[in-house]
Amino acid sequence: METLLYIIEVAAILVFAYSGLVHARRSGFDLVGILTIGFVTAFGGGTIRDVLLGNHPLYWIVHWEFLAAIMLLLPLELLLLRFDRDFSSGRVLMIIDAIGLGLFTASGVGIALSMNTPALPSAFIGVITATFGGVIRDILCNQKPQLFLPTEPLYATCAFVGAWVYISLVNLRVAPPLAIILCIVIVFLLRILAVKFDVKLKV
Amino acid sequence: METLLYIIEVAAILVFAYSGLVHARRSGFDLVGILTIGFVTAFGGGTIRDVLLGNHPLYWIVHWEFLAAIMLLLPLELLLLRFDRDFSSGRVLMIIDAIGLGLFTASGVGIALSMNTPALPSAFIGVITATFGGVIRDILCNQKPQLFLPTEPLYATCAFVGAWVYISLVNLRVAPPLAIILCIVIVFLLRILAVKFDVKLKV
Amino acid sequence: METLLYIIEVAAILVFAYSGLVHARRSGFDLVGILTIGFVTAFGGGTIRDVLLGNHPLYWIVHWEFLAAIMLLLPLELLLLRFDRDFSSGRVLMIIDAIGLGLFTASGVGIALSMNTPALPSAFIGVITATFGGVIRDILCNQKPQLFLPTEPLYATCAFVGAWVYISLVNLRVAPPLAIILCIVIVFLLRILAVKFDVKLKV
Repeated sequence: METLLYIIEVAAILVFAYSGLVHARRSGFDLVGILTIGFVTAFGGGTIRDVLLGNHPLYWIVHWEFLAAIMLLLPLELLLLRFDRDFSSGRVLMIIDAIGLGLFTASGVGIALSMNTPALPSAFIGVITATFGGVIRDILCNQKPQLFLPTEPLYATCAFVGAWVYISLVNLRVAPPLAIILCIVIVFLLRILAVKFDVKLKV
Repeated sequence: METLLYIIEVAAILVFAYSGLVHARRSGFDLVGILTIGFVTAFGGGTIRDVLLGNHPLYWIVHWEFLAAIMLLLPLELLLLRFDRDFSSGRVLMIIDAIGLGLFTASGVGIALSMNTPALPSAFIGVITATFGGVIRDILCNQKPQLFLPTEPLYATCAFVGAWVYISLVNLRVAPPLAIILCIVIVFLLRILAVKFDVKLKV
Repeated sequence: METLLYIIEVAAILVFAYSGLVHARRSGFDLVGILTIGFVTAFGGGTIRDVLLGNHPLYWIVHWEFLAAIMLLLPLELLLLRFDRDFSSGRVLMIIDAIGLGLFTASGVGIALSMNTPALPSAFIGVITATFGGVIRDILCNQKPQLFLPTEPLYATCAFVGAWVYISLVNLRVAPPLAIILCIVIVFLLRILAVKFDVKLKV
């Protein structure tokens, strides 16, 4: 179980980092820019979560093996980029990203609750954890955040629903690992359905 | 007195949030973007203040009723937006915003001083509290910060003067509630005069 | 020795601030914008370092004399700007900036290590301390960060190498002042060579 969650986490971090690399390439950045945007996309959401909660030391300072993994895999990822520029919109990446969305939401909510944060801000911190890496990525690339554009299918909304599922399960005294799995499953299904039926939040 | 300040604060937060909604609409964002920009404009300045000072838990985590208020009033505010796109430049909003500018300046300086911050950085933290919500709003909308443009009448400058008024009064052992009121009055008058006579800070 | 480092630090902070003023002028900002961008460029990297590490109170809150120095020198710096718009690309500024790059890298790594941060994240925090003031400067000016563009000679890379030099020296029990000097010398030489031979990191 622990191992499974760890594998999902590593896969999700690498996928988030990869989406950062793709954006940085498209923005014409150099290696420093590509690597920075990769890190920021992967760890930005969790860093904002920890800074908002005053939770130190930060995730990537303790688990610096993730930094090393992204650096070591960089040549491989740059190779992938060269072969297939649209790989980032591919089905496999979308599926791992959707699992990561759920996992990061659950982890954000879980850490917030464990620091006695009330339910509503905990839900927001879950969504921020899962989505704000992408927001900083877009800001650093000098673009409007994709997360806020009506051209994209539901993303933050899936995380928000998942956050409440997790909070409700924890309040019902469901064991945390089970609550995490259920949160991931719900977020994953919502996100896949949103993409499949192209559900958007126009105003 | 307490009640009066609370009412001013709620009104100012809602006006700041509303200015965020207006900008997000103009940027073509969806509901997620509109709500996020609304929150960020209302709470961004106070969040930066608390993160810079290491003051946890954050304001909106303790007072999450403000998050709920902005969410509940969202349909009303979207309706307002639909009826009057220029409502945001209206006189009533400008007046509430000017009161909020003074109130947030005083609250920022007050919290900074209470954490033994020296006078000059306390004044800056007061100005940051009152104005940086708008700066993050503009960054997220991929625009140059309005606060820095010479096309706008004095804004941060009014807050800076008000911050020093507050610091001086506190040093003269004036009771905090009175110092807050005087700070708000000074900032309010300066801002209203700056708008009326179109005073700008060209270089 | 202490005095020498202090003089280098003051010079580097003023040069970083000056580069902020230049960018803010070019973006057409008013006095508030110019001063803010100046502060942010000078103190942004160190502020991010302290916020990431949870290291309070912040540098510029304790040493508020630096804030005062930038404000007092503002008229002089604006005068400089008026006389020579290309002064910022001048040789003297580039040299002081290169020394500052090394000094801030060493200070960032040093503070990170003193808070028991592992080596790899400490190196990143050193680079962030030395370079992210400029990144926030560019974001606030609504531009792509110069740091990430392949048109510029090596900058973050010099800091990264210097960070590892500093970490290695500390692990070899070299006295901190000597390690700082060696780190500054290495970063300085790398940067000067990168500029002289126009070394870039294209992908």
